[in-house]
Amino acid sequence: MKDQNQTRFHLHESDIPRFWYNMNADSPVAPTPVFDPVTKELISKDALETLFPLPLIEQEITMERFVPIPEEVREIYKLYRPTSLIRARRLEKALDTPAHIYFKYEGESPAGSHKLNSAVPQAFFNKISGTHAMTTETGAGQWGSALAMACKMFDMDLEVFMVNASYLGKPYRRVIMETYGAQIFASPSPRTKTGRSYLEKRPDHPGSLGIAISEAVEVAAESEGKKKYGLGSVLNHVMLHQTVIGEEALKQMDMAGEYPDVVIGCVGGGSNFSGLVFPFVREKLKGDKRTRFVAVEPTATPSLTKGTYGFDYGDSAGIVPILKMYTLGSDFIPDPIHAGGLRYHGMAPILSGLYSAGLIEAVAVGQRAVFEAAIQFTQTEGILPAPESAHAIRTAIDEALDAREKGEKRVILFNLSGHGFLDLSAYDQYLHNGMINGKLPDEQLEGITDRLPKVKI
Amino acid sequence: MKDQNQTRFHLHESDIPRFWYNMNADSPVAPTPVFDPVTKELISKDALETLFPLPLIEQEITMERFVPIPEEVREIYKLYRPTSLIRARRLEKALDTPAHIYFKYEGESPAGSHKLNSAVPQAFFNKISGTHAMTTETGAGQWGSALAMACKMFDMDLEVFMVNASYLGKPYRRVIMETYGAQIFASPSPRTKTGRSYLEKRPDHPGSLGIAISEAVEVAAESEGKKKYGLGSVLNHVMLHQTVIGEEALKQMDMAGEYPDVVIGCVGGGSNFSGLVFPFVREKLKGDKRTRFVAVEPTATPSLTKGTYGFDYGDSAGIVPILKMYTLGSDFIPDPIHAGGLRYHGMAPILSGLYSAGLIEAVAVGQRAVFEAAIQFTQTEGILPAPESAHAIRTAIDEALDAREKGEKRVILFNLSGHGFLDLSAYDQYLHNGMINGKLPDEQLEGITDRLPKVKI
Repeated sequence: MKDQNQTRFHLHESDIPRFWYNMNADSPVAPTPVFDPVTKELISKDALETLFPLPLIEQEITMERFVPIPEEVREIYKLYRPTSLIRARRLEKALDTPAHIYFKYEGESPAGSHKLNSAVPQAFFNKISGTHAMTTETGAGQWGSALAMACKMFDMDLEVFMVNASYLGKPYRRVIMETYGAQIFASPSPRTKTGRSYLEKRPDHPGSLGIAISEAVEVAAESEGKKKYGLGSVLNHVMLHQTVIGEEALKQMDMAGEYPDVVIGCVGGGSNFSGLVFPFVREKLKGDKRTRFVAVEPTATPSLTKGTYGFDYGDSAGIVPILKMYTLGSDFIPDPIHAGGLRYHGMAPILSGLYSAGLIEAVAVGQRAVFEAAIQFTQTEGILPAPESAHAIRTAIDEALDAREKGEKRVILFNLSGHGFLDLSAYDQYLHNGMINGKLPDEQLEGITDRLPKVKI
Repeated sequence: MKDQNQTRFHLHESDIPRFWYNMNADSPVAPTPVFDPVTKELISKDALETLFPLPLIEQEITMERFVPIPEEVREIYKLYRPTSLIRARRLEKALDTPAHIYFKYEGESPAGSHKLNSAVPQAFFNKISGTHAMTTETGAGQWGSALAMACKMFDMDLEVFMVNASYLGKPYRRVIMETYGAQIFASPSPRTKTGRSYLEKRPDHPGSLGIAISEAVEVAAESEGKKKYGLGSVLNHVMLHQTVIGEEALKQMDMAGEYPDVVIGCVGGGSNFSGLVFPFVREKLKGDKRTRFVAVEPTATPSLTKGTYGFDYGDSAGIVPILKMYTLGSDFIPDPIHAGGLRYHGMAPILSGLYSAGLIEAVAVGQRAVFEAAIQFTQTEGILPAPESAHAIRTAIDEALDAREKGEKRVILFNLSGHGFLDLSAYDQYLHNGMINGKLPDEQLEGITDRLPKVKI
């Protein structure tokens, strides 16, 4: 029902999309090949099948424009979808801007972020493919929480390798995953060969995302097909699943009687941004829209604005497949900023392609300015954002201020990908203890090209 | 739009109630008088006005059936209301019950619980009455978080006296209040005479809700009318504000094509229970409904099931007005259970009246059974409940199991008053470290009647 005066725009349950949208069907950039991290040759289906079930591999390579969403997945989506589109009227007023600011609120998901949109189908397709249990790693914790919930929904076990520093410093994240029934290992763990080798060297090892990925992949690879690995971003099938965000937002903007001039999202691996943006890119490619798309990354991990476009490992340990993407180098060590979900060296291949083609803009913002925006948002709209999502808020506010300066009406849409209830220690630090801005030491960029793996094209 | 097959029932923004419902207009039990804690005589309007602004005092004593909700309050309600009514289909399936289980999800509020429903009008009526700043106390933290957000929405300062043990043990609760712009004092604090007197005796005093209330009231009382005090439960005007929950639920049950046989809520001071239940009690008093109403309290604070009905102080320090209620005695010290919001010695006067008249049932449940229910709920419906709200879940599950045993269809509605993202340490304790069940030492009940204040009726 159209009603421009509303603050929150709700769709009916029957409006939950029945298809995921595959950007590869319309992108002007052809899909790029995937290479085996060991042989450096084109990866075999068998190698992929040690990690992922067949239906997800098919989604990874399909060129179909629309991929049907199984009813079993839509049943779980009904627990929280369609999510609200909200007009930030109080923020607009505080900024004294002629711009209209809308946000899609994915923090309404019970697991707290958009990650559930891919966790649910990943768990489902594993379940119907005979997978007994899943394995994954988690740093910031949003992906681990989402996959823990999704696995429980399909009555499947999950082993999560949680970076030891996070395990010790973010106990609430561990507990929510346990409440969903997952088994959590502080990584490095005695559970795997990889973990034991690190523990021998240093019993109190703080861990890293690279080690945690290695452990999760090792458990899957050595399970004789019983266990498979789940990844929360970067891969094509993850981007595909996230497009439910944008498909809903298209309908909701229509309810509001407006169309966005600019669509904004934060980017780590790229999944929440792609999920909101791809359906709007499709509409733009049809020819009659002038929408801009802005990917917001931290100054600490500026893979789009400062990275190199080339083939690189998807992980820092060099054991998952090699993908073509904007990258800061897989050996890159980011400043310890609080938006843990954005501390990734690369960028999803599909999104990297669109960026290389000039369809997407990118901007890097500092952590202090991000938290300033987060607090202004919390104090006007009431919702406490995750530090990751607050990057999108920063840029949405900057767009609104720019519109004010130019005296132009501008319709802004951004993705509020998650809430910040489990990130309050970051707010505490900002309010009381000072906070670094986060930057990229330039020397880390030197000679990146030489350090990328040499794939056999 | 009617559609019985939905999982979540959304109302349109225009369905946010325009009136609060006043149970006193229809209750078979006449409103009971309020006494001055010092003189023990009927309280004067002047004494009330040192604490509350005139519009709230008028709401406290009005006999009008419907009290209009100001548009300024509805504007803030639009940030999160109408909240969802959700059918717990996956929980029903797990319980293999013919019962239909619905819940109203007040955890969708940005501050995380139903408390915002009263915080917003309290802040608004203070603002228009010329109040410069508000004061309050908080233990569990849900009320403090809600009032902090509400005060910021109306650009008014807030001082929160937070029980020192909570201040130290629940830093996330402190931080969210600070993020909303409130000023937080660990209580006892050097800010007040009361606080200083406790600190002199013991510099590391853990504090108590009684001391925190004393400090908040002292600051208001000595501000020459500039500052007023806000209370999150018990009083008539708080119950009034919360009825938006039940008014929405009536419409949503109609969308679902059903009417509840039993309506359930947890009770501490009584506000979330009353908010959901009172509109359904009104419908029952019209004569054609047989709905049961079940208030769920912890075995550690069983004010309805084991308390005495008489006049008692609203607080444990004996400085706020004396009310007629079911009470365990204002000097009562509850077991340290995790549902901090339910650790209250008394019960809202209106609700106490309905209970005395036999219109409401009550049941006391142990903390371990409550967390068992909370985890079953999280693993089926995905939503992590606050420990307080999980008391209602326990009883909803028990009703559904009883319906299964008797082979009868039963429509169950309960209030999920808040989420548990800030209560994960309690889940950690349940999962790993054992948990007491919480009980009431019987000796605490001995001679209660003699210890109640002697009011001059």
